[in-house]
Order: sequence, then structure tokens, then C-alpha cells
Amino acid sequence: MATAALLAVDWGTTSARAYRVAANGDVLDMRNAPLGISQVVDARFGEALDRLLGDWRNERVPRIASGMIGSRQDWVEAPYIACPAPLTALASALVYTPQRELALVPGVRTRDANCVPDVMRGEETQILGGVDPREEHVLLALPGTHSKWALVESGRIVDFATFMTGEAWHVLITHSILGRLAVQGAPATTPGPGFERGITRGMGTGALLHDLFGARTLVLMGELAPEEVSDWLSGLLIAREVRNARTWAHRHGYDGGRVRVIGDDALVARYAIAFAREDVIVTPVPSHAAARGLWHIARSAGLISDSR
Amino acid sequence: MATAALLAVDWGTTSARAYRVAANGDVLDMRNAPLGISQVVDARFGEALDRLLGDWRNERVPRIASGMIGSRQDWVEAPYIACPAPLTALASALVYTPQRELALVPGVRTRDANCVPDVMRGEETQILGGVDPREEHVLLALPGTHSKWALVESGRIVDFATFMTGEAWHVLITHSILGRLAVQGAPATTPGPGFERGITRGMGTGALLHDLFGARTLVLMGELAPEEVSDWLSGLLIAREVRNARTWAHRHGYDGGRVRVIGDDALVARYAIAFAREDVIVTPVPSHAAARGLWHIARSAGLISDSR
Repeated sequence: MATAALLAVDWGTTSARAYRVAANGDVLDMRNAPLGISQVVDARFGEALDRLLGDWRNERVPRIASGMIGSRQDWVEAPYIACPAPLTALASALVYTPQRELALVPGVRTRDANCVPDVMRGEETQILGGVDPREEHVLLALPGTHSKWALVESGRIVDFATFMTGEAWHVLITHSILGRLAVQGAPATTPGPGFERGITRGMGTGALLHDLFGARTLVLMGELAPEEVSDWLSGLLIAREVRNARTWAHRHGYDGGRVRVIGDDALVARYAIAFAREDVIVTPVPSHAAARGLWHIARSAGLISDSR
Repeated sequence: MATAALLAVDWGTTSARAYRVAANGDVLDMRNAPLGISQVVDARFGEALDRLLGDWRNERVPRIASGMIGSRQDWVEAPYIACPAPLTALASALVYTPQRELALVPGVRTRDANCVPDVMRGEETQILGGVDPREEHVLLALPGTHSKWALVESGRIVDFATFMTGEAWHVLITHSILGRLAVQGAPATTPGPGFERGITRGMGTGALLHDLFGARTLVLMGELAPEEVSDWLSGLLIAREVRNARTWAHRHGYDGGRVRVIGDDALVARYAIAFAREDVIVTPVPSHAAARGLWHIARSAGLISDSR
């Protein structure tokens, strides 16, 4: 087994992913476990970490983690760092667990144009792992339950914004009247034609609270198949997020014509359809962005020496 | 007991309300029952009607109902009438139950600027009961689970639009992460200061999928009390509906400065706060709009003679 210089954990609410990382940042091994924060009973985080690392836990190398594990309700709080947040600020704000089992990366906070706070925890690390510090301007999208959009300039997270797209889709299709006429088909790797039609609706300038109701009325009128409702709603919400996030980026002086997307393949494929519709160029992202970000932060914090 | 000329029923999904109406349209008696369509087992609508009417059921006068009772899934379908829908079109499209126990008022349909259908069933009757046919231009708002806004010209429903405000609030506060930091206080007759702050957020031009997240971040940052989350979210969604609906009315040539509001008192009071913020004048609505609308329709259909 190649020698690791760092054990890195992307530790979220529902799942955790651990990496063995080489001194040059390469990912040597990876393992997933259903050991998300919400599965940890009685705050036994140390035990959960041991189970997650398995036989790696005897390696005497630094350990670092990002994600919800550092929230106030969890192991130890790693307080949010304000934007603009450079890599060095994250590195110097690492918080250690009581027995120094793990260094925890802080989340990042900002305020929007109306001074309402916004926060992220975990995505800041993926973002820093998804850029090269020499890049002057990068617009990133991290689609998900709570999608994040971020602006990064020379390795500094300048600003970001959250969109509750994934969760809005989930609660509406599961708990609202919109799901009542819907029939869930077999999970498709590629979204159906309903998705494309939802995209068209979402790219418009309508009011979201009104537009949503189309997921019911189109079926009532026989203009959308019950099997397409879920995809239609997904397309509507994703497109609305993309349109609104590009407006947000414009206000920050970004043309929004190029976006780097970090996320799971199926979701990235959906966003790619929305981006293509708007002629937005999707730029490739290095794999294992979280591991890469943790390695950058560990190195900046002096946990591992620079062997690049 | 004064002589009734009509038994009128506003029969919705969760509840039903029956009225004895005099020949001149005055409501003589009213009764509510938890006999909404969703509570009727095995399509035994006739029995439910008898229970709802109670001792009124022996009165030999015409009976008419509006609401979900006329939907495709329920007693007998009363197909939607297209906008612009005058009173006379609704009256001439009444559908009778098999044994003529009840005349059912059709719903109304339209298409929005993007040709996506919209529908209502029950509100058309409240709307016609809430206007005088001699009024040339009336903008109405019917706040609720699925709020409706309608434009009525000389007793004709010219167009309308649905906003899923009430249901969006319900599913988000009940099933999303936004409810997790919320503490439900005792039901207040007047909304708290969180509502006013939500109104401010909702009147802005932000993206709804982003703005919603403030219900979490403001609490995380100690800037909103957990007891205020529900009201804040209510204010945000109501204000966004009002802003968007007024834009919709403008596009139809209405200035949106005067609105007639039909709904339950607590909800109307919330909307009144949002309207006051925008200097919108709320014009009074006659009570028992549904009963009044059913009487207008019955009269137009010749079920009762004109004794005005």
C-alpha cells in the first residue's frame, strides 16, 4: 500500500467519505460509509471515525475533515469564516477535536445584497479543491439539496449564494398536491422529455409560486403524462436556479457564460442540459474535489509538508 | 323559519358549508360540516349531502353546489369553462347529479402568458358573489392553499392566476430543513414581528429559491428567534405572491392599487399587512361570497325566479 501523507474525510449529514491522500495530493484510496452525522448515536463521533477509517486508523498521519461534522450541533464547532475567504483563512481557523483525533475545517458565511446571512459547510472545501489558486476568476455551481454557487478569485472564495432547489423539489413532489397526480417511473439515467419542458418553463420570467402549479394543471388537461411530472418539476426548479444564479453572478461582474460544476454525475447531467439551453460552457472539474481541497488546506495549515 | 328559495353548498376538499338562501339572495342559515370530498367514503356523496343538509333536506327547493364536488374524481364532473367566463356561461353549464339531487357549478380554466393551463373550482363562484355585475373592473385576491387572483369585468371572469403560497408554506415548514430550527409558538391571532420582516424580504426582487434559505440562516446567526420562523416564512411567501400577482395584473392593464380580498379572517389580516406595505387599498367584500355567487348562478340558470 502506497504511503499516505493525510487522511481526509468529507463528513456530511447523511454519508461520509474518507480518503488516503499522498503527499502530492493524489488520492490513493477512498471509502464511503453510511456514517453521516445524522447516523451517529449519542455523539459517539470517535467511534464512528474509527469505523469509517477501518484499518487506516493505525496510520500515524494527520487527519482532517470538512462538512457538517464541524457544525455547532456536532463534534466540535468550527465557527464560520466570513467571505472573502482565502485558503489561508480556512487553514488558520482549523479546530481540533478534544483528543486531537481530527482537524475540522470551518464553514464559510456571507451576506446577500439585502444583508441576509448565507452559510455553507463542506462546499468551501470542494470549491477550493475544484480550482487552481492561479485562476483569476471562476464561477462554480455545486448542485444539490441546497445548491451553492460561488465566485473564486485566485484561491479566495469571494462570495456565494444558496438555492434550495433539491429540497424544494423533494418536499413538493413528496408532500404537496403536485405529487398526487405524479407517477414515479423507473429511475432513468437520462431525464425524459418532461424535463426539457420543465426547463423551458423555468427559464421564463414567471413567478415561481405560480409556475409550480403547472405540474398539476398540465396533467389535469392531459398535456403532461403522470410519469413526466417529477422530471418536469425538476427541470423547472433547476432552470430557475440557473437563471437566478447567473443574474447573481452578473451583479458581481461575472458574465456567467462559463461555469464549473461539482456534484454527482446524474445531477450534473441534468444541470448540463439547462446550461446547454443557455449556451453556458461547462468547464471540467478535477475528480475528488473534497479530498483535493482538504489536502490544500492541510498543506496551508502546515499539517503536511509541501512536497510538490 | 323563514322560507328558503335555494339550498346552496360550497363543497371543498376538506370541508363543506351549506346555506339556506332567500329569494332575494339573503343568507338565512348556514352550517359547516367536516364532510369535504376527501372525507366521503366509497363515493357515497348522496348520504354525505343528506347529513350536511340535516333537517333542511326535506325543503322542496332547488339545490346547487360549487367546489371540488364537481371535479372529475368526485360525484359528477362539471367540466371547466374557459375564460373569459361570464356568469351566464357558468349558469348554462350546470351539471346535474344522476338523481338530480344537486346542480354542480363548473370550474373555470385559462392559459397563462406561456400557454400553460390554470384552473379553479369553487373560487369562480366566490368571485361572482364578491362583485356587482355593474362594476367594470375588479381585481380580486382569494388567499389560501392555492391562492387565486382574478380580473372581473362587468360580471365576466376575464382571467385568473394561481399561486401555491399556502401549500408551499405548509410543506416547507413541515417537511423541509426550514422547519427544523423553528419552534411553533401558540397560534397568534396577529402575526409577530417575524412576519413583518418576512414581508420585507418577500417584497424584494431576490430569487425565491435563495430567499427561502434565510429562514434557516437568520436563526443560525441568532438574528431571528426560532418562534418567528413560521411567521417569517409566511410573510416572505405572501409578500412574494402579492408582488408577483400585481405584476400579473399590470400586464392586464390593471394598476393593482385596489384589491378586493375574499378569504378567512386570519389570512385576510395577514394579506392586509402586505397590502398596506405597498399602499394597496383593500376594498370590502360582501359576506357569504360563495352563497351569493351560487344564488346569482341559480338565478341566471332559471332555477329560482328573479324576485329582486
